[in-house]
Amino acid sequence: MITAGGIDEVRRLIGEAKKAGKTIGFVPTMGALHEGHLSLVRRAKSECDYVAVSVFVNPTQFGEGEDLDKYPRDIEKDSAMLSAEGTDLLFFPTTDDMYPDGFDTWVVPGGPASILEGERRPGHFKGVCTVVLKLFQIVSPDKAFFGQKDAQQFTVLNRMVIDLNLALQMIECPIVREADGLAMSSRNAYLNSKERKAAVIFNQAITRGAEIIKDGNSTRDQVITEISKVLSKEPLARLDYAEIVNAEDFSVIEKPRGVVYILIAGFIGGTRLIDNIKLKIEK
Amino acid sequence: MITAGGIDEVRRLIGEAKKAGKTIGFVPTMGALHEGHLSLVRRAKSECDYVAVSVFVNPTQFGEGEDLDKYPRDIEKDSAMLSAEGTDLLFFPTTDDMYPDGFDTWVVPGGPASILEGERRPGHFKGVCTVVLKLFQIVSPDKAFFGQKDAQQFTVLNRMVIDLNLALQMIECPIVREADGLAMSSRNAYLNSKERKAAVIFNQAITRGAEIIKDGNSTRDQVITEISKVLSKEPLARLDYAEIVNAEDFSVIEKPRGVVYILIAGFIGGTRLIDNIKLKIEK
Repeated sequence: MITAGGIDEVRRLIGEAKKAGKTIGFVPTMGALHEGHLSLVRRAKSECDYVAVSVFVNPTQFGEGEDLDKYPRDIEKDSAMLSAEGTDLLFFPTTDDMYPDGFDTWVVPGGPASILEGERRPGHFKGVCTVVLKLFQIVSPDKAFFGQKDAQQFTVLNRMVIDLNLALQMIECPIVREADGLAMSSRNAYLNSKERKAAVIFNQAITRGAEIIKDGNSTRDQVITEISKVLSKEPLARLDYAEIVNAEDFSVIEKPRGVVYILIAGFIGGTRLIDNIKLKIEK
Repeated sequence: MITAGGIDEVRRLIGEAKKAGKTIGFVPTMGALHEGHLSLVRRAKSECDYVAVSVFVNPTQFGEGEDLDKYPRDIEKDSAMLSAEGTDLLFFPTTDDMYPDGFDTWVVPGGPASILEGERRPGHFKGVCTVVLKLFQIVSPDKAFFGQKDAQQFTVLNRMVIDLNLALQMIECPIVREADGLAMSSRNAYLNSKERKAAVIFNQAITRGAEIIKDGNSTRDQVITEISKVLSKEPLARLDYAEIVNAEDFSVIEKPRGVVYILIAGFIGGTRLIDNIKLKIEK
């Protein structure tokens, strides 16, 4: 694994790999890597000849009062994990590299970015789209790999790729879970042991939602009511939202049909967690 | 010259040219071509192995009440002119190609886009940046060529290229003028013969501004007053703005120094025209 010193070196190394006829896979991350990230790297390795990973805690996607400062950072551990997976190229740009003086051009998504996380975290998807577009321009990958855990992020970015004619393929990879079902997340590190145990309720709630949605006769209201009921059993947990959306465009569905996400967001103490289940309702 | 049938064919042809080791020059236009556009094509031919030209009257950069519907279109004449210049690839995407159903991701510039044309034409530079980024992703040129006549557009796009890490070089080409000094523009076609004669006043006004600015002691106010005075001699002309800005970032300069644009915008009848002079103030 080569750790590039800067953006120019990334471009040079990718250029060489392309010249050698290699396809480029790209996994953009914010570091604090876990098995979820590593599953993306493995998938990229299996589909592409040359795999680049970025680690950048992007300040422009954090809002006021969010956890930018305390977001976990451990570049040495991340580096060792990526190297062990056979990553070809690692780079971790600085904030000055990415947002130099005078920076003021933004990629602003509408459509699927306007509800749920977009509503609760104003500017979040604008920051995400801007930094991911920038990283895509630096790496110019054939395929980019993202986790389904951030389902809305994937949908917003996928829309960006289509809308802005980016010449790459977006790959959504399944959520990796702990043994008890909790979706892996860098933010799980914020939880104390009591909170960690309680956090499983989010997955339990949407799993129950998925059970009753599969019958094909449940309305959105019925499913959300059931999810809320399950969540209310855990006194440490607080619901932010539960929702059912069309997986294509993230529009809310009153009568769930086709491919949908059942989404949940909430708090355990001061820690905000999200989770989802993607499923196809046949009838 | 090949006229591509669609975006996929453009990508394929450019891909082949790149594979053959050719450098790609790109001239995005809105058609209604004149000598100004052809000078860009010639410059592109002189600096690149393979030159692509797009013709697309981009609806998203026109505001309410602007001239989208009457903007001149003559694709056959344009095509003949481009072929005669040795253009390698011409494409003219449809609005549906560029803005399919559900399109809603925008490139929004700040900084140099916030004054003058940006203030008077809300959303204009957002439309320009969005369509040019899209075209850049389709063509992936090594160099892109724009006219200095739209100086603020060039500055905004150049900032976009830097901010979003686009891997291409922006080339600003000199204004091409009619014999009497009027800057060539597709919109000059709107002028009747009396208006056409009167339109030269814009260039005369900024030429006078350039004369007095060269002494290095004039303030912005003095230069603008003088420009307004010249313009007021032509009863058919109406000033929108005259301004002096730093050529780097389009910030207004009270005491002009370094490389600056002297800018003018105004009306002849219902036709809005712009012009500028770029100059370096030595002392």
